[in-house]
Amino acid sequence: MKHIREFFKKDALAAHLGIELLDVSPGKAVARMQLRDHHLNGLGTLHGGAAFTLADFTFAAAANSHGTVAVALSATISFVKAVRTGVLTAEAVEISVSRKIGTYTVNVTDETGQIVAVFQGMVYRKGEPIHAGGSVRQKKI
Amino acid sequence: MKHIREFFKKDALAAHLGIELLDVSPGKAVARMQLRDHHLNGLGTLHGGAAFTLADFTFAAAANSHGTVAVALSATISFVKAVRTGVLTAEAVEISVSRKIGTYTVNVTDETGQIVAVFQGMVYRKGEPIHAGGSVRQKKI
Amino acid sequence: MKHIREFFKKDALAAHLGIELLDVSPGKAVARMQLRDHHLNGLGTLHGGAAFTLADFTFAAAANSHGTVAVALSATISFVKAVRTGVLTAEAVEISVSRKIGTYTVNVTDETGQIVAVFQGMVYRKGEPIHAGGSVRQKKI
Amino acid sequence: MKHIREFFKKDALAAHLGIELLDVSPGKAVARMQLRDHHLNGLGTLHGGAAFTLADFTFAAAANSHGTVAVALSATISFVKAVRTGVLTAEAVEISVSRKIGTYTVNVTDETGQIVAVFQGMVYRKGEPIHAGGSVRQKKI
Repeated sequence: MKHIREFFKKDALAAHLGIELLDVSPGKAVARMQLRDHHLNGLGTLHGGAAFTLADFTFAAAANSHGTVAVALSATISFVKAVRTGVLTAEAVEISVSRKIGTYTVNVTDETGQIVAVFQGMVYRKGEPIHAGGSVRQKKI
Repeated sequence: MKHIREFFKKDALAAHLGIELLDVSPGKAVARMQLRDHHLNGLGTLHGGAAFTLADFTFAAAANSHGTVAVALSATISFVKAVRTGVLTAEAVEISVSRKIGTYTVNVTDETGQIVAVFQGMVYRKGEPIHAGGSVRQKKI
Repeated sequence: MKHIREFFKKDALAAHLGIELLDVSPGKAVARMQLRDHHLNGLGTLHGGAAFTLADFTFAAAANSHGTVAVALSATISFVKAVRTGVLTAEAVEISVSRKIGTYTVNVTDETGQIVAVFQGMVYRKGEPIHAGGSVRQKKI
Repeated sequence: MKHIREFFKKDALAAHLGIELLDVSPGKAVARMQLRDHHLNGLGTLHGGAAFTLADFTFAAAANSHGTVAVALSATISFVKAVRTGVLTAEAVEISVSRKIGTYTVNVTDETGQIVAVFQGMVYRKGEPIHAGGSVRQKKI
């Protein structure tokens, strides 16, 4: 899993938002995000975009855990609890994987273990190996 | 609409990602985001979280355009085109609004007008007036 | 839970499609559907609408299990396995419930326990008690 | 388009629910459903499963309009208006189509033109030609 972890270190948006990949294993991933002021919306609560990015990143890690490139097709998020501070943890689980398609659910929880958001997403599996370094040539789907 | 625009200037994640609100009118909003390196994922293409945040911000602006606080319940995004550079524009349209619930769709397009992502979201309308300045006391849903 | 079960016997679409409620308890429900020819699409496989209806019915039972009327706001379904025959089981679990909003996930599985579809949905909780018999006066949301 | 229309006549669930395909052209489709008692839920209003099936069928017709088999991956529906009687019309529009993936939105409206539900869905395009008659051999995705 080392090259998968290396690959996700190149995720610039995750770095910009302070998202850390804690663990990745086949079909699973865990990541965390310490809430900062720049994660908030105009109401001073967690921005939907920050919660989504944390979930989406964890989903991508789980979907790419098999060593070949998987790109997101679609995702749904339900926001169930407003939070303002603390550390959020996202945990992605593979529901199903076929040759071309993978389906994942992600729970985002706060420090007390309460669910903040639930996420469901699908990827298209391109079959190309993941390279931790250098550029990745991408075929169109 | 001036206080709505002021309110969205306080959106810290939008500022952190360089998202600008171009226009807001009852039930509608338009925003843009100039792609930067920090919007990309490990493949060097637009991160799903950045596309979502742009769409979600525009959705929030349209949903709050009536002058009372609306909070996102759920959203779905379909990613239809990979992009790496340029300016993205998001346009949110109100599909339906009742006393408590609003439904919106958002198209995210690139500079050539091609669709990059489509988004569909629902809000809960809390009924409290939006204040451009000062803190907003939030009732639980 | 008896009046909840009685209430769901009045679900005409579920009856038309042969969906049976097996169990309902606070925040949970289980239902099943024996596949018949009228559940299939033009390819001879399970129609998305039949899988959705089974999941949606189970979701509704879980969401109404607290004894007050809950109406669906939105739902997402991911189709992960094509099936043609056998018995499908749907199991709904409550992710979160507040005064006004409830969030549920539903897994639809085949007889071997493999996942056929995953579903995520939200309801608006109207607060009116459920009546097993007689008509239900509905307030607008 | 004649063989596409013939193909959708074999949709058994659509027939069971009284859904008629009115029109199909490249990337578009229109269908209708006259509400009957068997389309209702326990509250006596349109069942989410019936609204979804109408939208899903129209989505499938639009997605298969190019003459090759497309199967649904995921779909999201937002329910925006409760109805009890009348004729519903669904109109599907193609947002994007690539070699392997297609994205569609569907509006379901009542007789007054008001939106009852909005739907967004994605298909996987298998590339096999559609046959109006005889069985269709299906490759796994």
